Amino acid sequence: MSELRDAALQYHAEPKPGKLEVNITKPTATQYDLSLAYSPGVAEPCKEIEKNPDDAYKYTGKGNLVAVITDGTAVLGLGNIGALAGKPVMEGKGVLFKRFADIDVFDIEVSTTDTEEFIKTVTNIADTFGGINLEDIAAPRCFEIEQRLKETLDIPVFHDDQHGTAIIIAAGMMNALKLQGKKLEDAKIVCLGAGAAGIASVNLLVGMGANSENIYMIDRKGVIHTGREGLTKEKQAAAVTTDKRTLADACDGADVFIGLSGPDLMTVDMLKSMAPNPVVFALSNPNPEIAPELANATRDDLIMATGRSDYPNQVNNVLCFPFIFRGALDVRASDINMEMKIAVVKALTELTMEPVPQSVMDAYGKTEMSFGKEYIIPTPLDPRLGERIPAAVAQAARDSGVARI
Amino acid sequence: MSELRDAALQYHAEPKPGKLEVNITKPTATQYDLSLAYSPGVAEPCKEIEKNPDDAYKYTGKGNLVAVITDGTAVLGLGNIGALAGKPVMEGKGVLFKRFADIDVFDIEVSTTDTEEFIKTVTNIADTFGGINLEDIAAPRCFEIEQRLKETLDIPVFHDDQHGTAIIIAAGMMNALKLQGKKLEDAKIVCLGAGAAGIASVNLLVGMGANSENIYMIDRKGVIHTGREGLTKEKQAAAVTTDKRTLADACDGADVFIGLSGPDLMTVDMLKSMAPNPVVFALSNPNPEIAPELANATRDDLIMATGRSDYPNQVNNVLCFPFIFRGALDVRASDINMEMKIAVVKALTELTMEPVPQSVMDAYGKTEMSFGKEYIIPTPLDPRLGERIPAAVAQAARDSGVARI
Repeated sequence: MSELRDAALQYHAEPKPGKLEVNITKPTATQYDLSLAYSPGVAEPCKEIEKNPDDAYKYTGKGNLVAVITDGTAVLGLGNIGALAGKPVMEGKGVLFKRFADIDVFDIEVSTTDTEEFIKTVTNIADTFGGINLEDIAAPRCFEIEQRLKETLDIPVFHDDQHGTAIIIAAGMMNALKLQGKKLEDAKIVCLGAGAAGIASVNLLVGMGANSENIYMIDRKGVIHTGREGLTKEKQAAAVTTDKRTLADACDGADVFIGLSGPDLMTVDMLKSMAPNPVVFALSNPNPEIAPELANATRDDLIMATGRSDYPNQVNNVLCFPFIFRGALDVRASDINMEMKIAVVKALTELTMEPVPQSVMDAYGKTEMSFGKEYIIPTPLDPRLGERIPAAVAQAARDSGVARI
Repeated sequence: MSELRDAALQYHAEPKPGKLEVNITKPTATQYDLSLAYSPGVAEPCKEIEKNPDDAYKYTGKGNLVAVITDGTAVLGLGNIGALAGKPVMEGKGVLFKRFADIDVFDIEVSTTDTEEFIKTVTNIADTFGGINLEDIAAPRCFEIEQRLKETLDIPVFHDDQHGTAIIIAAGMMNALKLQGKKLEDAKIVCLGAGAAGIASVNLLVGMGANSENIYMIDRKGVIHTGREGLTKEKQAAAVTTDKRTLADACDGADVFIGLSGPDLMTVDMLKSMAPNPVVFALSNPNPEIAPELANATRDDLIMATGRSDYPNQVNNVLCFPFIFRGALDVRASDINMEMKIAVVKALTELTMEPVPQSVMDAYGKTEMSFGKEYIIPTPLDPRLGERIPAAVAQAARDSGVARI
């Protein structure tokens, strides 16, 4: 790890600090150029926007500009390190937005952890942007923050830790179930971890047809069941009536395990107790809920995914967030809604079935990549993502009535 | 004007909306590159910053990043057009910061006009930035906003409409008075306009040695004198004991006229009544308080400046704000204080005395440019500004104890 540490610190520090810069896109060589960019010429677009606020999309960068906003309370696996310490991650998100979807990002670190004040702050600066990507905000606060901002603002608001993760899980899951000969409607699902990603993943799977009675969510206190007291609003909605109490109880006979929790929490016995042909998404990073080597040695009928790039089937949000925003911005969508999220899932599952271009295999040093147990979702460096997903999202926005152009 | 209008709108709209974009400065071609820019490598700079917040200057863009923040209440001469409609100006400011001082700018449009809420919003997002440039915020709210933010934040906060304007006026004024054989200490000064720029200009001139008893400020109701009731805190501080009541009264025998008000408010008779060898800064834009042609036809012993680029002696904030921030950021100053502002004035006045490079004369299509009645301040396209002013500001920051590196 020390080698990666040194390389990462050097990458961020040299030759100059950070990973992003702001550049000018118009001529500024002459006094005349400057008289257009600034006073007196700049008064003209101002007057147009004053008359018609939508002209901000015509004369400013708003329409291609996404704010990546955090309060620093749940940064990666590091926890509540504070907004400023989260800045490298937010700038990194900006790098990915630009690299994969040519979207400009301002990262904004918000130094309050008061929910109302956070909402007020984001609302007050929202005019600046064409969309808002909430990032690394702890549950359950993140649910209320996102919901309230979605209600108030007329631009897309998307908490990637919830929905980005949920979308990739759902896409990989659909393909994994297909390979295992199972249907989402019938699948018994265990979700270990009831934070932002867990709640959103279960909600999306239910939205796509999973039976909520078949889904066991597990938090630090065990299975979330209707007999438990003191549950948050979101956990109440996920509670099932059952006499299962532990993770081991829940895994017994389950078709699907989704781990969004911590390292090594799934035992060999739990894995053995799952139904035939199980699907195991052990997404804790960098150390999964069960190591792939151990899982594969335990049974040979499983399909496995992790959050890591050095194993097959990486569940990686970058397959979604640049492209869902690209599609939303392209049609000036007022929201990112369930229809648009499902459109991404479908586009990803369909793309997985198609032959992989040689260039993509080369990028990963592979001679073989095709739909199967070790390829249930596309890889981040696949250029077809940018061709397919934004178009699918834009179409879903139009069909569901949230597109504005 | 229609030709400028068309050109300005096209400039802002084509080939893509706006004037700025965000670009990546580090490699992102391979999976390994991305593992440094984002997870898992990005956790390393996060942990360093959590331990030592100053490491944000080492591993993120914070140290070269200035927020240009407005509430849209006093945009150019357009007035209260709202924050969103002010976005082209804020992006234009970003263009100038980049063009002249290689500073990255995030423009932030704040949609509240409540003073407390504005302060709270800016405070909450301030960790993101290395400095804050407040822009186009109406008086008197701008005074409290700037003062409170300066007290709270440990990064430089600078309201350009106040201090940028004041600094250029002071620099031009020092040189004009020198040419006219007058001393600032003795000069009788009239300032028409008691908004952000007027108040700050008078304060800076007093800070540099002007006698506050000799300065008459005039607002819509006439001379600001100690007998007036209902004055704001700032105007109270500027009030003098006098029986002068009108602009005409104030101009009678004055050495200096500073117009920060509106077109054609200075009459020929007022100009005639000024003392011998007067200095007239008619800075209302685009139409000055008295047209230069009229003023020069009225008397030949005056030195005149305007806010326009098509007359000699343009008072233009771009001579200051990119460079004062460059100097402040270079030494990680915790403030932009009076010493740093005066350092800019001195650097500008001294630079004016030196021979002008041929390339600068060429840029303005001039065969002759040297210290005199038609050249009392440098021109924006002079590359020596970037060599001299930041260094002078940094030195002043060190000498006054606000430099942190």
